[in-house]
Amino acid sequence: MMPDQTSEHPALNNVDIGLEATGTRREFDSMGDVEVPADRYWGAQTQRSLQHFSIGGDRMPKAVYHAYGVVKKASALVNAEAGRLPQWKAEAIVRAADEAIAGKLDDHFPLYVWQTGSGTQSNMNMNEVLANRAIQLLGGTPGTQQPVGPNDDVNMGQSSNDSFPTAMHIAALSIIDERLVPELGKLAETIDRKAQGWMNVVKVGRTHLEDATPLSVGQEWSGWAAQLRACVAQIEQAREGLYELALGGTAVGTGLNAPKGFSRKVAAKIAELTSKPFVTAPNKFMAQGSLDAMVRASAALRGEAVALLKIANDMRWLASGPRCGFGELRLPANEPGSSIMPGKVNPTQCEAIVMIAIQVIGEDTAIAFAGSQGNFELNAMRPVIINNFLHCATILADGCEKFRTYSVEGAEIDAEKIAAHVNSTLMLVTALSPVIGYQNAAHIAEDAQATGATLREAALRSGKVTEEQYDKIIVPRDMIGDGLAGA
Amino acid sequence: MMPDQTSEHPALNNVDIGLEATGTRREFDSMGDVEVPADRYWGAQTQRSLQHFSIGGDRMPKAVYHAYGVVKKASALVNAEAGRLPQWKAEAIVRAADEAIAGKLDDHFPLYVWQTGSGTQSNMNMNEVLANRAIQLLGGTPGTQQPVGPNDDVNMGQSSNDSFPTAMHIAALSIIDERLVPELGKLAETIDRKAQGWMNVVKVGRTHLEDATPLSVGQEWSGWAAQLRACVAQIEQAREGLYELALGGTAVGTGLNAPKGFSRKVAAKIAELTSKPFVTAPNKFMAQGSLDAMVRASAALRGEAVALLKIANDMRWLASGPRCGFGELRLPANEPGSSIMPGKVNPTQCEAIVMIAIQVIGEDTAIAFAGSQGNFELNAMRPVIINNFLHCATILADGCEKFRTYSVEGAEIDAEKIAAHVNSTLMLVTALSPVIGYQNAAHIAEDAQATGATLREAALRSGKVTEEQYDKIIVPRDMIGDGLAGA
Amino acid sequence: MMPDQTSEHPALNNVDIGLEATGTRREFDSMGDVEVPADRYWGAQTQRSLQHFSIGGDRMPKAVYHAYGVVKKASALVNAEAGRLPQWKAEAIVRAADEAIAGKLDDHFPLYVWQTGSGTQSNMNMNEVLANRAIQLLGGTPGTQQPVGPNDDVNMGQSSNDSFPTAMHIAALSIIDERLVPELGKLAETIDRKAQGWMNVVKVGRTHLEDATPLSVGQEWSGWAAQLRACVAQIEQAREGLYELALGGTAVGTGLNAPKGFSRKVAAKIAELTSKPFVTAPNKFMAQGSLDAMVRASAALRGEAVALLKIANDMRWLASGPRCGFGELRLPANEPGSSIMPGKVNPTQCEAIVMIAIQVIGEDTAIAFAGSQGNFELNAMRPVIINNFLHCATILADGCEKFRTYSVEGAEIDAEKIAAHVNSTLMLVTALSPVIGYQNAAHIAEDAQATGATLREAALRSGKVTEEQYDKIIVPRDMIGDGLAGA
Amino acid sequence: MMPDQTSEHPALNNVDIGLEATGTRREFDSMGDVEVPADRYWGAQTQRSLQHFSIGGDRMPKAVYHAYGVVKKASALVNAEAGRLPQWKAEAIVRAADEAIAGKLDDHFPLYVWQTGSGTQSNMNMNEVLANRAIQLLGGTPGTQQPVGPNDDVNMGQSSNDSFPTAMHIAALSIIDERLVPELGKLAETIDRKAQGWMNVVKVGRTHLEDATPLSVGQEWSGWAAQLRACVAQIEQAREGLYELALGGTAVGTGLNAPKGFSRKVAAKIAELTSKPFVTAPNKFMAQGSLDAMVRASAALRGEAVALLKIANDMRWLASGPRCGFGELRLPANEPGSSIMPGKVNPTQCEAIVMIAIQVIGEDTAIAFAGSQGNFELNAMRPVIINNFLHCATILADGCEKFRTYSVEGAEIDAEKIAAHVNSTLMLVTALSPVIGYQNAAHIAEDAQATGATLREAALRSGKVTEEQYDKIIVPRDMIGDGLAGA
Repeated sequence: MMPDQTSEHPALNNVDIGLEATGTRREFDSMGDVEVPADRYWGAQTQRSLQHFSIGGDRMPKAVYHAYGVVKKASALVNAEAGRLPQWKAEAIVRAADEAIAGKLDDHFPLYVWQTGSGTQSNMNMNEVLANRAIQLLGGTPGTQQPVGPNDDVNMGQSSNDSFPTAMHIAALSIIDERLVPELGKLAETIDRKAQGWMNVVKVGRTHLEDATPLSVGQEWSGWAAQLRACVAQIEQAREGLYELALGGTAVGTGLNAPKGFSRKVAAKIAELTSKPFVTAPNKFMAQGSLDAMVRASAALRGEAVALLKIANDMRWLASGPRCGFGELRLPANEPGSSIMPGKVNPTQCEAIVMIAIQVIGEDTAIAFAGSQGNFELNAMRPVIINNFLHCATILADGCEKFRTYSVEGAEIDAEKIAAHVNSTLMLVTALSPVIGYQNAAHIAEDAQATGATLREAALRSGKVTEEQYDKIIVPRDMIGDGLAGA
Repeated sequence: MMPDQTSEHPALNNVDIGLEATGTRREFDSMGDVEVPADRYWGAQTQRSLQHFSIGGDRMPKAVYHAYGVVKKASALVNAEAGRLPQWKAEAIVRAADEAIAGKLDDHFPLYVWQTGSGTQSNMNMNEVLANRAIQLLGGTPGTQQPVGPNDDVNMGQSSNDSFPTAMHIAALSIIDERLVPELGKLAETIDRKAQGWMNVVKVGRTHLEDATPLSVGQEWSGWAAQLRACVAQIEQAREGLYELALGGTAVGTGLNAPKGFSRKVAAKIAELTSKPFVTAPNKFMAQGSLDAMVRASAALRGEAVALLKIANDMRWLASGPRCGFGELRLPANEPGSSIMPGKVNPTQCEAIVMIAIQVIGEDTAIAFAGSQGNFELNAMRPVIINNFLHCATILADGCEKFRTYSVEGAEIDAEKIAAHVNSTLMLVTALSPVIGYQNAAHIAEDAQATGATLREAALRSGKVTEEQYDKIIVPRDMIGDGLAGA
Repeated sequence: MMPDQTSEHPALNNVDIGLEATGTRREFDSMGDVEVPADRYWGAQTQRSLQHFSIGGDRMPKAVYHAYGVVKKASALVNAEAGRLPQWKAEAIVRAADEAIAGKLDDHFPLYVWQTGSGTQSNMNMNEVLANRAIQLLGGTPGTQQPVGPNDDVNMGQSSNDSFPTAMHIAALSIIDERLVPELGKLAETIDRKAQGWMNVVKVGRTHLEDATPLSVGQEWSGWAAQLRACVAQIEQAREGLYELALGGTAVGTGLNAPKGFSRKVAAKIAELTSKPFVTAPNKFMAQGSLDAMVRASAALRGEAVALLKIANDMRWLASGPRCGFGELRLPANEPGSSIMPGKVNPTQCEAIVMIAIQVIGEDTAIAFAGSQGNFELNAMRPVIINNFLHCATILADGCEKFRTYSVEGAEIDAEKIAAHVNSTLMLVTALSPVIGYQNAAHIAEDAQATGATLREAALRSGKVTEEQYDKIIVPRDMIGDGLAGA
Repeated sequence: MMPDQTSEHPALNNVDIGLEATGTRREFDSMGDVEVPADRYWGAQTQRSLQHFSIGGDRMPKAVYHAYGVVKKASALVNAEAGRLPQWKAEAIVRAADEAIAGKLDDHFPLYVWQTGSGTQSNMNMNEVLANRAIQLLGGTPGTQQPVGPNDDVNMGQSSNDSFPTAMHIAALSIIDERLVPELGKLAETIDRKAQGWMNVVKVGRTHLEDATPLSVGQEWSGWAAQLRACVAQIEQAREGLYELALGGTAVGTGLNAPKGFSRKVAAKIAELTSKPFVTAPNKFMAQGSLDAMVRASAALRGEAVALLKIANDMRWLASGPRCGFGELRLPANEPGSSIMPGKVNPTQCEAIVMIAIQVIGEDTAIAFAGSQGNFELNAMRPVIINNFLHCATILADGCEKFRTYSVEGAEIDAEKIAAHVNSTLMLVTALSPVIGYQNAAHIAEDAQATGATLREAALRSGKVTEEQYDKIIVPRDMIGDGLAGA
């Protein structure tokens, strides 16, 4: 007889979170008994994993369990609606799941990242904790698996194989929506605002690191903002794949042991609980056999890293100096820069962003590699993928916030240095090219460079251009065009 | 006075491609004279590049020049329409550009990939070849830059900085549209067709490489097809960024030396010439300072590589044997597999795909790295990016074609082996779980495994299930659900 | 007048670690005052860094500070010997440094990985903590920088630019010597021991995943052990570069503000303190401008990852089944494998190793990238490099330990399955090749495969070999040669 | 009866290379007949591969076949010495192999990189070509496999599984010894020579891109040379693994079908033929199941790429300008830099090196990935590994040569700009620190920066230092220390 056939309904009590016991408690699974710390909700399989996989300090991110709480809650609700799970059990599981979602059970999810590749141990950790917490709420004895079992009740109609990637997608979208895209947007906005303010400050352009024709400081900054906006767009495209959920595929994608319609209903329930447009994945064999949607989402994070690397590099080079560098930009002096060189100030926020970007590019490599290593009905590289993804999204979001707050917002230009550069660059000669031809213009620039003459001197002595022509054509402000879209 | 102010119009002659001369011809640029092979259209700067950059065997892909021909043609047409370029000159340039587009001038584009990071040398190669060919068509003398100059006429209103990335986008989209997406589609279609045929062949599922609950062969194959279809979708998303063209930004994005409206008009002209929805990039500072759109497109190729690695691996493992492996799949025997082991047949097409996928993942790493290394108004890593991109797209497309033709289409299943596996797997026990509970079911499976009993034997002797129950529940065909979307 | 010119010698007291105060304490640096938590030893610059760089959860590894303690101790001793630092000050600093080395001050090193690229903030954290602790030991008031200053005394003769990479090398070598190489050695040894035990168990070989000629189980395992031994050798080669220390180069490599001979003496002191053969780097401009030795050491970790991936993959494929896979190996059943499939056991330790290996390969990519991004006299990517390096070494060492303990040591072979495979493989035909020629042998194998015949049946009916010949030649045990070095 | 039991010895004729025939010739293998071009030496298996694997334009590098010639020659000689191969056959094979080694048969090795992962098809290409060429030399008929068979004679005692990695190691060492290390050495030497010449030119140091204490131009350059020398050392370490040869392991490492002692003898023969210290690999199961030695060698190439990236970046930033950048270095103006900006000169050789370095880092990623994907007795990712390795070594060697010839050798410093920078940097204040304390020194620098004062002005008005003290202490030339090893 199955444990969920009880006819009398235990009452759901209000019991604070916590197990007031010391020493250990006996828990069991199909392999036998295991002693677990008496003040923890977890059960036998969590304990086994703790023993076998204490590798480094990397723990499965809490965000995974918060998302998993949604999976368990939605499943319990759908199972109850279908009459497969008694209402009172569902209520207890839902109560416990809500606590998990809110982070109140975080101390009971101790497992390491480096565990089974399916995430089963984290799923069982969740099942065991919710079961014991539900048992407690229902007045039962933790460890008995009665009246709520981790496998038969909390995990009803689910497998790690479909529920773990579902939790991955929920967790990934949460950080994208709550942290990453907002911070990226704020950074873009801040850069844009600075760009607006400097839209008419003419500066020397640089290509190949070498002096080029002029543009405005605002135009230069606008390019950075545009890069970041394109990053947001890519992330939003990548969200599409994440909205598709594996739940309902159970063990291998066929949905064995889940009732007909479970996939669709549980995705709808998750959509309702999260207010995000989740749907059930149309092909569960792809949804469980691959993690391609995660690989794509990671590529979007990499896209952001690539853009940030360029932006932060530009800023720190422009700020180089203060006396022997480009010196066109002044970044906030947040702290003394050197333990030995007094008064030194360094572009430390830019450096942090560069390092974060490099880290993201490295971890994305790991994600893509892991994404390629699925076999048959399962990609058993899930923990390494979700851990890296959430880590990358976190440091990108936090990094953008700090970079914006402590470096970009307070950045100022050195108008004098900028003007001096514009006045000295020989590449203003380019504007003469349509009038006197490229070769003649080149000879003027080459002469100026060789002799140290100003462009004006060299131009006039070339005999190819009159003083009047020169002064009419060589007007840096007229050379920056109009707006952002070029000619 | 500018060279293009000639009032009389030289006639455009029909002259076959080719310069019938031996020895060398004197060409010049602003730095002086250079001897070039007399039978080549290229000029001084191409020759300088050949001397300074003969590194390895990597030549700038011809596809870049075919695309560059479109850039030059469109520019000449728009310049002529604007009255900046005499009509007769434009016609000569267009004629030459058409020849370049058609690949007829390929022998005149010899430059190496490892050159200036802006691609200027390839742009000048194009300018020099089109100028000399136009000069020839107009009855002039190659090397004189009269009446058509490489910089003043062919390159009018353009810089390498805006025209090279424009050519990159055109070339990238060409191979995507003409080769990559079609081949990916055909492979997906073939896999889908095979899947349909085997939709009711029940086989053992495998997770963690271990026996799991059953699914059908068709379901398994459908997952691969779904992965490939998602790859196509990602590539199509990545196309969006590639439709935005830098042309009209000229040297640094401001459009200096190009007439107002050039950006928009020339993008429209390119769209017309290519029948693709190109538009001018709304922010030229991003379009020239970054190559983010290319990095995104490369990520889409990587997505395909990741999927293909999984698919090819699955196929070759399923085909492992013939007698000591999984042995469920039979791939075509295209060639003897071993120089020493007679009669050996290997999954060579799968191996080629795996190697191609790894190569793409590696080159994508280079593309992302290079994409991050732009500075100020230019990302000077263009040649390494476009070379890797076109290479990856080519080997992916060709690889998919060969894989489909010589391995997937002829793949057959070993129905007997598949059936034997289904009949022996203990994981059918999963279906008992909802009836007798997970723990009881586990003990049955563990007993069978420990004693070598069949699942039926172990189940019946457990006392948890009757013979009738067992035979009703343990029906593999009933366990594969219905369709592709799970429960 | 300098703060260290005091003539009276404060006494060094025995004061337990800890600041018994609540609220905040005023600290200062050249930019002004900062409030810090009163119960922490750190000063103004640490606090500024905490504010500006709270990014994610990545903290600079404690191992860096333990190593940094050695740097500070050695410097103080050499400075005292040179008469630049009063003996009593040196003693106080050394006492504090010893506490840091022992990990007793760990709670006072809170900084994030994502900080200034030189590691200056962690150096200042160390300087501030040691200064305040020394002040406390000398009876002074924390925050006064008297009588021990963080810059003038603790950092005497040092810069972050030379001391941080010195600490990196010390920390890297510590984990290599104490954890990584020992664990790698134990794993190799365990595999070797298993190999010895199975040296005469004949099994089918597999190339391209397909049946090949036989070898022994022990030979197969010996290859894995040999791979791991080669990994150790590579790590030992990589150690060479790490023995070279930057200390003494100070700000830019010239040694400004350090006394003549400091480099050599301080390296000798560090060698003495650590019992490792450290020497001063012969070129300080390389030692500070690059992190090439770290990149090389990381490549050695990657080498281990590559080998482990192969080994763990082999093991889990050999263990695949139990009934529908290769089934030649039985890995310990450490925990239930599935939340839905009762009785399932998975190769979870192998999966953890595969994920760890992929992680290491990804982080190594970040290290190499960061290693390439130095500029002029500094590679300002140090935190990202040392954090990844120590992380990789940790998870590799721990992973090897768990893999060995919970999977390799308890692995058993399925002798029956192995024998059945050997008896069924057609590739035994290879031994006929020298006698009847490759083509004839191939036709026999092809016939057997096509008809389902045994090799013996096919061979005899081919007429190319007699029964007597066959039975003499086709003896699997005779085909595995002698030992490990091939023919 | 075996084909090599002929008692009469056909004579070895002098026949020029080439088959004078048109149309096709019938060749056969165990699967049947195949038509091949009549003027090519290759046989059936090469032709099958050409048909099935025409993917992209990547052909197996000729260097692999040159090395393979050594393998075939050495094997024939050892087989003949052992009496297994008739002397006259061996002579014919050796003659043909010598031609292959010399590159004279290059046109007969057309196969693609993307083929079977063992390289069997290239081995068979070699076997077929040498067999047919030997047949021709012996007066026989190509395609008959008489009197010399590709499998039974040319491949005698070998498998692709042991011979291909042997050829890989030989080819890798050839390019390392003949091209890579020499070019790396020359570049280091050139940089060193320049460093010597500028050892007393004092310049401003830069850390975090910001002005720092001074060093000499020669010291800066010496760091680059030291980096390159360390690269050579790493490559030399990596050579160790490459000296170990798989040959003699045959199919799976056991040496089946090769006579006892073959491994050792053939390695000695190869050592003799190549004058390199090759030895037989002590563990053939590692030598064939992994490609770890190649992964390590690739890591050494990556080490070089990482160093070159830093060096080339430093050079181009120092050369930035000419008027609005650092401007301390003048690189040779090899070609006009821009199609639109007249007179522009760019650091194109540096850019090529940077792109090459990025490419190498990307391809190394592919090599490591592929290196991890071996299974059981074979790593079937060989073609992708050797192709990338040889490609990387080639572009690194050629790139170093061009970089040295066209950029480094002609580089000049701008002494005036360098002096002006030294005179303006505030970081000279560091030398005051030991005298007046870090904090006082910091306030001087901060004051100077805030007010635009010179360091001297700010120092004197601070009251912390006298004029006399200042002028004695602040002497840039005295701050650069003595030599390269720091203090």
